[in-house]
Amino acid sequence: MTTKLFRQDIKVINVGLARFYEDLKYQRAKVTKVDWRPPAGGNLKLIQLLSKAESEEVANANKIAVKKIVTSSPKLIDIKRARDVIGVLRGNMTLLHSGPPIEWERMSGPTKGGVIGAAIFEGWASDARQAEELAKSGQIRFETCHDNSAVGPMAGIISPSMSVYVVKNEENGNIAFSNLNEGVGRVLRYGAYDEEVQTRLKFMEDVLSPLLKAALIITGPLDLKNIMAQSLQMGDELHTRNVASSLLLLKELGPSMVNTDFSKSDISASIDFIVKNQLFFLNIAMAAGKSIMDAANGIRASSVITALTRNGTDFGVRVSALKDKWFTAPAPIPKTLFFPGYKEEDANPDIGDSAIMETNGFGAFASAASPAVVQVVGGDVKEALRNTIKMSEICLIKDKSFPIPQNNFEGIPRAIDLRRIIETGTAPIINTGVANKKPGMGTVGFGILDAPMGAFIRAFEEYASTL
Amino acid sequence: MTTKLFRQDIKVINVGLARFYEDLKYQRAKVTKVDWRPPAGGNLKLIQLLSKAESEEVANANKIAVKKIVTSSPKLIDIKRARDVIGVLRGNMTLLHSGPPIEWERMSGPTKGGVIGAAIFEGWASDARQAEELAKSGQIRFETCHDNSAVGPMAGIISPSMSVYVVKNEENGNIAFSNLNEGVGRVLRYGAYDEEVQTRLKFMEDVLSPLLKAALIITGPLDLKNIMAQSLQMGDELHTRNVASSLLLLKELGPSMVNTDFSKSDISASIDFIVKNQLFFLNIAMAAGKSIMDAANGIRASSVITALTRNGTDFGVRVSALKDKWFTAPAPIPKTLFFPGYKEEDANPDIGDSAIMETNGFGAFASAASPAVVQVVGGDVKEALRNTIKMSEICLIKDKSFPIPQNNFEGIPRAIDLRRIIETGTAPIINTGVANKKPGMGTVGFGILDAPMGAFIRAFEEYASTL
Repeated sequence: MTTKLFRQDIKVINVGLARFYEDLKYQRAKVTKVDWRPPAGGNLKLIQLLSKAESEEVANANKIAVKKIVTSSPKLIDIKRARDVIGVLRGNMTLLHSGPPIEWERMSGPTKGGVIGAAIFEGWASDARQAEELAKSGQIRFETCHDNSAVGPMAGIISPSMSVYVVKNEENGNIAFSNLNEGVGRVLRYGAYDEEVQTRLKFMEDVLSPLLKAALIITGPLDLKNIMAQSLQMGDELHTRNVASSLLLLKELGPSMVNTDFSKSDISASIDFIVKNQLFFLNIAMAAGKSIMDAANGIRASSVITALTRNGTDFGVRVSALKDKWFTAPAPIPKTLFFPGYKEEDANPDIGDSAIMETNGFGAFASAASPAVVQVVGGDVKEALRNTIKMSEICLIKDKSFPIPQNNFEGIPRAIDLRRIIETGTAPIINTGVANKKPGMGTVGFGILDAPMGAFIRAFEEYASTL
Repeated sequence: MTTKLFRQDIKVINVGLARFYEDLKYQRAKVTKVDWRPPAGGNLKLIQLLSKAESEEVANANKIAVKKIVTSSPKLIDIKRARDVIGVLRGNMTLLHSGPPIEWERMSGPTKGGVIGAAIFEGWASDARQAEELAKSGQIRFETCHDNSAVGPMAGIISPSMSVYVVKNEENGNIAFSNLNEGVGRVLRYGAYDEEVQTRLKFMEDVLSPLLKAALIITGPLDLKNIMAQSLQMGDELHTRNVASSLLLLKELGPSMVNTDFSKSDISASIDFIVKNQLFFLNIAMAAGKSIMDAANGIRASSVITALTRNGTDFGVRVSALKDKWFTAPAPIPKTLFFPGYKEEDANPDIGDSAIMETNGFGAFASAASPAVVQVVGGDVKEALRNTIKMSEICLIKDKSFPIPQNNFEGIPRAIDLRRIIETGTAPIINTGVANKKPGMGTVGFGILDAPMGAFIRAFEEYASTL
């Protein structure tokens, strides 16, 4: 009998606790793993809402959202002054910031630093003390980037005189904006605001932006989907690694930059600025991501996540069906690899609109494309692949337009489904830059984190109530 | 008894035929595979010579060769006219060609085409017929690139007026040269020679080369090891894929190119030429590889392969201990993905010095870094990894200076050991461009091939006789 049993082809299905599976696998048994946990952590209310949300109405709505996402092919069409294209910046002393809405008092150090730096840059204040008083007095109006078709990394401060990329989602007709990337270290978006920062911002406004604008006119609109897909083949995940994409941008614009009327020294300085900044393309990718997610936003009954973002204090989530409504939870502190001289206590909670990259299937979702990024925070190649596979469990599709060579050319996981987050208890993973928590400082490292579940649960409860 | 047997932890060691291993593995048995084949295919003479070659003398000699290879850090220091740096080109009507030595009569179509094009370019002949007669008459002297510290891809024709990269192996003190890459299609190195080819060569001599030379003076010597290591992180294998390395070169030289005295239109045209040629960096990488392998060549008793190269008719091999002696076998036709409009009958046998990349651990040896390349010839990601692992079986080291992310950051296999080729019967794999077999045509596709064993067997027999 035993003999017969062992001669048979034994197949085991392991449901639930992985321990048994691991044991059987170790013994080379044929075992299939069903990674079962009680849905929604066994929360009966959520389980009920989940069953309500498994409807044809939702499936159809999500089909529309998915179609918006995969058919979008954003183009970089122009570079303009923010005040000329973003309505709210035409008024007096208004600034955009990253993440969900927040008042001066609750702003984190790097956001405050960004506000101070922008107030000085705009000439509203002549030093940090004056700028701070101005902000405290309530004279500066704060608006989110996201509510104004824009995205900004880290503090995400966009002031009226700053230039912004203009990205058009031609398939949907909408426009999105982002500011230009300054590099890493003592830079405005990480809360630094001193003379070094101001001089760099002035160069970006006086030379870099108009030069890129002129080059763009010569080259014509840039196909961003093409650049982004190529860069995934070249080790970028397009959030914390934009090495290839930045060079591919130079490939497209370099010859035209030389052909503008700008002086050779301006052209050389601008090319130098781009090649020395391995995140230069990030803001363009973000604007592309925003233009795609805005197209998928506001679809009745769709459970697709259309924004993940942080203001350094709160983590904010948007779901398509609920359009512009924010659902928040406290922003966690990322697991960080610190630059020399910095430590845990220096790190600000998670900050920036750059999680629009994960919202679109890049960043940590595309980890497998970029093992170097996971390595930075102590992971290995397998963890990189694991992160991508894990994220595919909460996404509706794998987008073949963005294949990852190291994942056998499978597409990136896209269209995050709020229902799957609730059901599996798996939160989106985010790769991110980490700011010093004090204003006026800068970058302290790069990290990784799980988005906080609280925001998704609140979003889901309200979402389910509308079905 | 049977029960007890099955309750025991059965471990199987499978020696030899893989079929049994595969069966046991399919049954999830604990089985270790010893991929045993009789060494040297059971050839008793070779087995005897192999045992002679497993000596301390050889081990010590190979240690020296390995040290030469891993400590070499080639720098691009200049661009000069070939006749000013390569002695044999100072004489009347001399041309360098790729691969081992060959006379006009035995030259393949693309090599003949390259000779014709170079003769026209140099003004020795005014058309193809004249050039051909000149070559037939014996008035053109042919020398190999390899014998003159140079390497040239495909036909590898270097004529006196052409510019060459000057790469210095500072650790060893030697210099290596290569010509500039023209792009793909109707180009001289694939045997095309018409007006389009001549105009491009003229632009390269009149504008591109002097401009790059001037930029290099501003930037200073370029650390090629650094660029090559970075490019492996970005999907290049540095033989048939040089997408990232070419952009990384532009990153280093772009700002300086703008700062030269050249006109904006020359600068723009040159940047445009570089960004549109995804193989632009290949020739620089080849010169780097040549400078490394020449340093490791001529070490008494060393069994390290110091050149793999092809002239379109013969495949040639050099082994360190035997210095400049060539061992040849007929060049095979690569397994090719043809460009639209071409087929098997159009393909010339394997051609070019570019297998210096495989000789150095790049190309097919670094396949794992570049799954896109294997995909081109019908392979998948696993095959890419398999090729790298297979090549590590015939190499002495894995060089940590060139980690492959997709292989868990293991180094590329380097320092090919002739003994291991003979013992295992595993020939080096080579990624390659494929030329039209007729002169005057151009590129027909990209392919992959196993180097022919005959050349290695002949080399080994002579090598062993010197021990």
